[in-house]
Amino acid sequence: MADAYNLEFFNVSFPAEYVAHVEINRPEKMNAFKEVMWHNLSKIFTALSTDPSVRAILFTGAGRAFTAGLDVTAASSSPTFDTTTTTDGARKAFGLRRHILEFQECISALEKCEKPVICVLHGVSYGLALDMSLSCDVRIAAKDARFSVKEVDIGLAADIGTLSRLPHAVGNMSWIKEVALSARVFGAEEAMQVGLVSRVVEDKEAAVKEALELASLIASKSPVAVLGTKEILNYSRDKTVAEGLNYTAVWNAAMLQTDDIKEAMLSGMQKRKVKFSKL
Amino acid sequence: MADAYNLEFFNVSFPAEYVAHVEINRPEKMNAFKEVMWHNLSKIFTALSTDPSVRAILFTGAGRAFTAGLDVTAASSSPTFDTTTTTDGARKAFGLRRHILEFQECISALEKCEKPVICVLHGVSYGLALDMSLSCDVRIAAKDARFSVKEVDIGLAADIGTLSRLPHAVGNMSWIKEVALSARVFGAEEAMQVGLVSRVVEDKEAAVKEALELASLIASKSPVAVLGTKEILNYSRDKTVAEGLNYTAVWNAAMLQTDDIKEAMLSGMQKRKVKFSKL
Amino acid sequence: MADAYNLEFFNVSFPAEYVAHVEINRPEKMNAFKEVMWHNLSKIFTALSTDPSVRAILFTGAGRAFTAGLDVTAASSSPTFDTTTTTDGARKAFGLRRHILEFQECISALEKCEKPVICVLHGVSYGLALDMSLSCDVRIAAKDARFSVKEVDIGLAADIGTLSRLPHAVGNMSWIKEVALSARVFGAEEAMQVGLVSRVVEDKEAAVKEALELASLIASKSPVAVLGTKEILNYSRDKTVAEGLNYTAVWNAAMLQTDDIKEAMLSGMQKRKVKFSKL
Amino acid sequence: MADAYNLEFFNVSFPAEYVAHVEINRPEKMNAFKEVMWHNLSKIFTALSTDPSVRAILFTGAGRAFTAGLDVTAASSSPTFDTTTTTDGARKAFGLRRHILEFQECISALEKCEKPVICVLHGVSYGLALDMSLSCDVRIAAKDARFSVKEVDIGLAADIGTLSRLPHAVGNMSWIKEVALSARVFGAEEAMQVGLVSRVVEDKEAAVKEALELASLIASKSPVAVLGTKEILNYSRDKTVAEGLNYTAVWNAAMLQTDDIKEAMLSGMQKRKVKFSKL
Amino acid sequence: MADAYNLEFFNVSFPAEYVAHVEINRPEKMNAFKEVMWHNLSKIFTALSTDPSVRAILFTGAGRAFTAGLDVTAASSSPTFDTTTTTDGARKAFGLRRHILEFQECISALEKCEKPVICVLHGVSYGLALDMSLSCDVRIAAKDARFSVKEVDIGLAADIGTLSRLPHAVGNMSWIKEVALSARVFGAEEAMQVGLVSRVVEDKEAAVKEALELASLIASKSPVAVLGTKEILNYSRDKTVAEGLNYTAVWNAAMLQTDDIKEAMLSGMQKRKVKFSKL
Amino acid sequence: MADAYNLEFFNVSFPAEYVAHVEINRPEKMNAFKEVMWHNLSKIFTALSTDPSVRAILFTGAGRAFTAGLDVTAASSSPTFDTTTTTDGARKAFGLRRHILEFQECISALEKCEKPVICVLHGVSYGLALDMSLSCDVRIAAKDARFSVKEVDIGLAADIGTLSRLPHAVGNMSWIKEVALSARVFGAEEAMQVGLVSRVVEDKEAAVKEALELASLIASKSPVAVLGTKEILNYSRDKTVAEGLNYTAVWNAAMLQTDDIKEAMLSGMQKRKVKFSKL
Repeated sequence: MADAYNLEFFNVSFPAEYVAHVEINRPEKMNAFKEVMWHNLSKIFTALSTDPSVRAILFTGAGRAFTAGLDVTAASSSPTFDTTTTTDGARKAFGLRRHILEFQECISALEKCEKPVICVLHGVSYGLALDMSLSCDVRIAAKDARFSVKEVDIGLAADIGTLSRLPHAVGNMSWIKEVALSARVFGAEEAMQVGLVSRVVEDKEAAVKEALELASLIASKSPVAVLGTKEILNYSRDKTVAEGLNYTAVWNAAMLQTDDIKEAMLSGMQKRKVKFSKL
Repeated sequence: MADAYNLEFFNVSFPAEYVAHVEINRPEKMNAFKEVMWHNLSKIFTALSTDPSVRAILFTGAGRAFTAGLDVTAASSSPTFDTTTTTDGARKAFGLRRHILEFQECISALEKCEKPVICVLHGVSYGLALDMSLSCDVRIAAKDARFSVKEVDIGLAADIGTLSRLPHAVGNMSWIKEVALSARVFGAEEAMQVGLVSRVVEDKEAAVKEALELASLIASKSPVAVLGTKEILNYSRDKTVAEGLNYTAVWNAAMLQTDDIKEAMLSGMQKRKVKFSKL
Repeated sequence: MADAYNLEFFNVSFPAEYVAHVEINRPEKMNAFKEVMWHNLSKIFTALSTDPSVRAILFTGAGRAFTAGLDVTAASSSPTFDTTTTTDGARKAFGLRRHILEFQECISALEKCEKPVICVLHGVSYGLALDMSLSCDVRIAAKDARFSVKEVDIGLAADIGTLSRLPHAVGNMSWIKEVALSARVFGAEEAMQVGLVSRVVEDKEAAVKEALELASLIASKSPVAVLGTKEILNYSRDKTVAEGLNYTAVWNAAMLQTDDIKEAMLSGMQKRKVKFSKL
Repeated sequence: MADAYNLEFFNVSFPAEYVAHVEINRPEKMNAFKEVMWHNLSKIFTALSTDPSVRAILFTGAGRAFTAGLDVTAASSSPTFDTTTTTDGARKAFGLRRHILEFQECISALEKCEKPVICVLHGVSYGLALDMSLSCDVRIAAKDARFSVKEVDIGLAADIGTLSRLPHAVGNMSWIKEVALSARVFGAEEAMQVGLVSRVVEDKEAAVKEALELASLIASKSPVAVLGTKEILNYSRDKTVAEGLNYTAVWNAAMLQTDDIKEAMLSGMQKRKVKFSKL
Repeated sequence: MADAYNLEFFNVSFPAEYVAHVEINRPEKMNAFKEVMWHNLSKIFTALSTDPSVRAILFTGAGRAFTAGLDVTAASSSPTFDTTTTTDGARKAFGLRRHILEFQECISALEKCEKPVICVLHGVSYGLALDMSLSCDVRIAAKDARFSVKEVDIGLAADIGTLSRLPHAVGNMSWIKEVALSARVFGAEEAMQVGLVSRVVEDKEAAVKEALELASLIASKSPVAVLGTKEILNYSRDKTVAEGLNYTAVWNAAMLQTDDIKEAMLSGMQKRKVKFSKL
Repeated sequence: MADAYNLEFFNVSFPAEYVAHVEINRPEKMNAFKEVMWHNLSKIFTALSTDPSVRAILFTGAGRAFTAGLDVTAASSSPTFDTTTTTDGARKAFGLRRHILEFQECISALEKCEKPVICVLHGVSYGLALDMSLSCDVRIAAKDARFSVKEVDIGLAADIGTLSRLPHAVGNMSWIKEVALSARVFGAEEAMQVGLVSRVVEDKEAAVKEALELASLIASKSPVAVLGTKEILNYSRDKTVAEGLNYTAVWNAAMLQTDDIKEAMLSGMQKRKVKFSKL
């Protein structure tokens, strides 16, 4: 899997036992995304998903911004938006739809990753910053984070995930509409108050430290329990309570057959460090 | 469309470019609603929905209350509740169901309106006030607003939208149950804390001013982007994330074929006022 | 119904008109649950559901904790987890699935109970405490309440309701993931801030008093209105807005044929105590 | 309601007690549809829906064809397809979407009509013939009927209902794909074999006679029972079995309070003609 | 479990290895159902569901009819329909709804039974005959079977399952509407042609023989495979293809851990009788 | 794309304009599938999906069988089923689930392929033959085809698509249950009668000829119309009618902006061969 972790514009490291750290690394452009970057992102998280030496993942941005969003200059010269190849509205639509679906698929790799992903947002966190962080499991903000659902400012409705995930992530629909329709910039405290993030930390450094501690804590638990919890919560978010309960019962019919339960209980009683086998 | 805007119990004005203002105008009865009013409401917002000179809408109430809710005296003398025409429980049920569906349809015109609707709530905001404001996109409260899901107090479960929309608008189910089961009155700060509104403003005048600024800001953006954002957020609220993503891809396959994107980007770079063609 | 109310490990009393109080009563074990207890819980709430002398229910725990969760010692000696009867993974899975479905069904009796259930959480409120309280309608916390989605600590994903109900009860998905993946303990104020409970009260005694007042208030309303409100809110939580509206119209087509509406209006006008017939 | 029944291109008559007959009447153009026609269709069936003197409806076409489908010549000169008003792909898309939704809404009036609609198909039954008949409840074909999902032949996917309703009306998905992808013409016997129609009758005259007998039979039953059966079947078609059962229980909680049940049973026992009051 | 199999109006026998036979036994009333019967039916199939000595079930009626449906005389004297206890439409509705849900739950025990149920329909098979047989897995008709969705004839929409299950069992929606709206009687051949049954057999005796052979064949397969197949088909009927696939993957993640696969393959190769352990 | 078409165990050819032919080519093993084959299948159809020179696809098997299904010998030596790497039931379950999801994804490439796929089934068509053909759009059977949902015979519930797709493809649920629970072999005529295939043709050669004619006919239509029809039918199969209509409106808002409509109409009037640009 080493190859998958050594890709342009990303640093992948392993700062603690069973914890991986993925850093977006294009600080000179405020981590603005070009097409190669979302493909690389997808490759990295797809590999992490089944890497038995990883149980929790930290996701951050290098430099002074998490990401300023899409690299608009690069995007505008992309063949996708080359309108000279056809003048037929339907054929253009097919091209655009294929492109959007592919882009969405790459970003959804964060959500489909079997392991929990903890995202630290700091500095400029616009557009794609929200699409990506909403595909993560936990969002932690540094106090200096500035957010914007930026897309309406460039003439389009956000289409890589923000609009589909926000109503299931944040419990203030009036606020969601307000920021998505106006592209208004908002800060970390406001994000905390409405429920977009679960913690605000003094600065980026401290936020990364806290996120790493949280990742380490999660990584110390039974991976069977942790991966199941992520899967069931994502499933339940999208389904009725009755469907969620039924799915959980089928899921745990297999998963309760793990030795981790005995190991977790025994190590608890014996006050010793727990040790779970690979997954 | 002028006819649709000149209807009893409502004032329709155009206070800023591309912004309409709809005011409930029955202040002598605290804007209590009689049947003709919800039909008029529906006509107005249906017309605004496709009026190319409107891109955002302000919705307020004249006088000292947004609305005290249904005009119970008028309702009780309505033929719908005339139980002398039939004694057959099923036939009564058909009559009531047709009536409720028609009433719901009128109130849902606020949600189906293609343009964003920003609602300012002040003073007494009971019963229908919640049904209507929950059909709007953004809710702003004046400090003096007093809310109540009033219906249980008159012996019925709210049936024009509050109970169907609250669980998808506010992220505290315990609180939703508490206020809906008890008809307890609550204020603007509490509404803000649980996520029912996205802003609390000093008084009605200031709230209308802020709402108008927000409407103007939204109206200055590409209407293709803004209308798409409203549509996709409403769709995604009701669907799984995967369904939301797929719908967004089809939607934007057409919508990215707009000149607004180029216009938005260019005007941004050239620091000039952006100008979008009619929609 | 008296028999259903006289079951081991529970006290059932009737502290106010139309109000029942169910107390978990195994304080010497911090109200930890053994299998007989969830069966008894189910029997009690199934009986309360159609008991015409009950219109609202208070649910609390005796002693210094609401409940410490599953009685792990009892559970581990349960035949369900006896792995010596078969070594076949599929047959074990059938046994576990039947067991989980039965357990879920018992806890869901709180949600299926036609009458509103108000839960007071205090002291240690771990694991099953969340499963149960999330099946209730209103959650009130005493200041000393300490919560934990404890299950990952014993090697499993919570399967009796917490993971299926949390995403529909609380509007901060990042926080939900954080506490469910880490089993981190959190307090009453944090629970209030994210929307898990709707009130925090000084101590258990005061919390029970407030909960009883709320229950009494709800019990004073039309039971047709109250039971309909619970049913429609639970339905709407799981469905699209359009489905919710349609269901409400059918529901109220029958329910508006009640004399409670006239009674509620008249007693309001005549400033006299309202009196609704049995349901 | 007389006005609603006296609209261009349609004949509305009342050939039997509680039975209405709607005939498409543009035989000189093989009943090809222009825009005014689908608006008139909608007005007629919306009026019939709540007309208490109607309990079942016959729907046929005058002349030698049920309908040849859309009047393509008229459609191509419609302002909807006037591409000179804007060159912006997104704005064109908004115009087209509004137009399609309006057209769909008109055709869906057949399905939303509370009373059962029995359609007789004969001769050329192309394109819109399928859209409309699939919105009806019962389809009866004359032997000479020739069907085609014609739309791909003119460069588009059928968008007024055929593609959305066929998979829920016919139980041979391979056949549905075959005819919808190829626009292949098929006859009445094939339609019967795959389940698109429920009867094939010798010729149009005999088919109308049988359809009228069926409509009269249905009209002789309790309207509470008949309208409920249509509503629940349409609901259940779109939902899970569990959802269907729950909806049925709520529906019949009101509808079993009808005197029709006693009347139906008594008249059965007394061998006399049953008489149900208006609905 | 013996007690559950020895209940009034039913004969339970075990005609072949791993096969149970449940016979409705009230032939003097054409197996018409009174309330005690559907409760007994539910108890029997709930017990069979987890009885390890049963792998397939035959369900038939004694005498010359499968069942004439509800015992209308008994039903009309039931307390449920006693309208003298209350005159309040809403309270009547609550009583009726509770009654319908309970009745549905009893009939759904056939569907929820983990083991496949094969139903033989002969002679008069009206009303409840369809409700029950549509809850079974396989329907086999004797040539003399006469069916009717009888409910509209007694003034009500069928509410115990027929209307909710038919659209998911039969692929001719026009036919479903025709027979459900008219209560028209139809025979075995017609039932076969539209897909309501999967076989028509010469007479009842031969049909029971064929059904028993089919039950024996199914009972000879791996119970892990058979029970999984029933569960997944019922799940998939109600869900999208994508949801079905995902559920299947989770289900089989546990179920492929069975020794039955090896046993099935080996016994196939060795041409010996396969032997699966209990489930 | 040539590389994607030159893969082991498959022949890809282009027998007519815009028509591709994919042939399974392992006749010496009756086209039994090993793991490499489903990966190759997926690669081929993923490439065909966006190949502008292809508008319809023929899918057949070389030799005397379409396919005998999974190569059980190869599968049993696959690392997936190597139970020696772990004894932990949960970890085995994770491995199996990943494997099933991957296998499903490969087979679903047939359904996700934007172009229609016409499958010809002949000779032995067991297990995987049904999984694959149910992912195709049109199924044509040669008279000698023998089908079986074979999986229960080897101790498992079919998990690559048959059980999830059958209830949405065939309108006789009793028959589906019968063949899936018993693994009974059935022939082409029975498949036609219940709606599993849309044509039965004399022998394989004639069936391939007819399928090629059908593919050519479809390939001669507007690709915008054809691809839209496939997409909307698949969407509508899984959704309510209302959702299908709404999706269709959004889809066609882009797709009606095609020149194909004008081209299709003109060429029709001018009786000349139609020519659509690439897609």
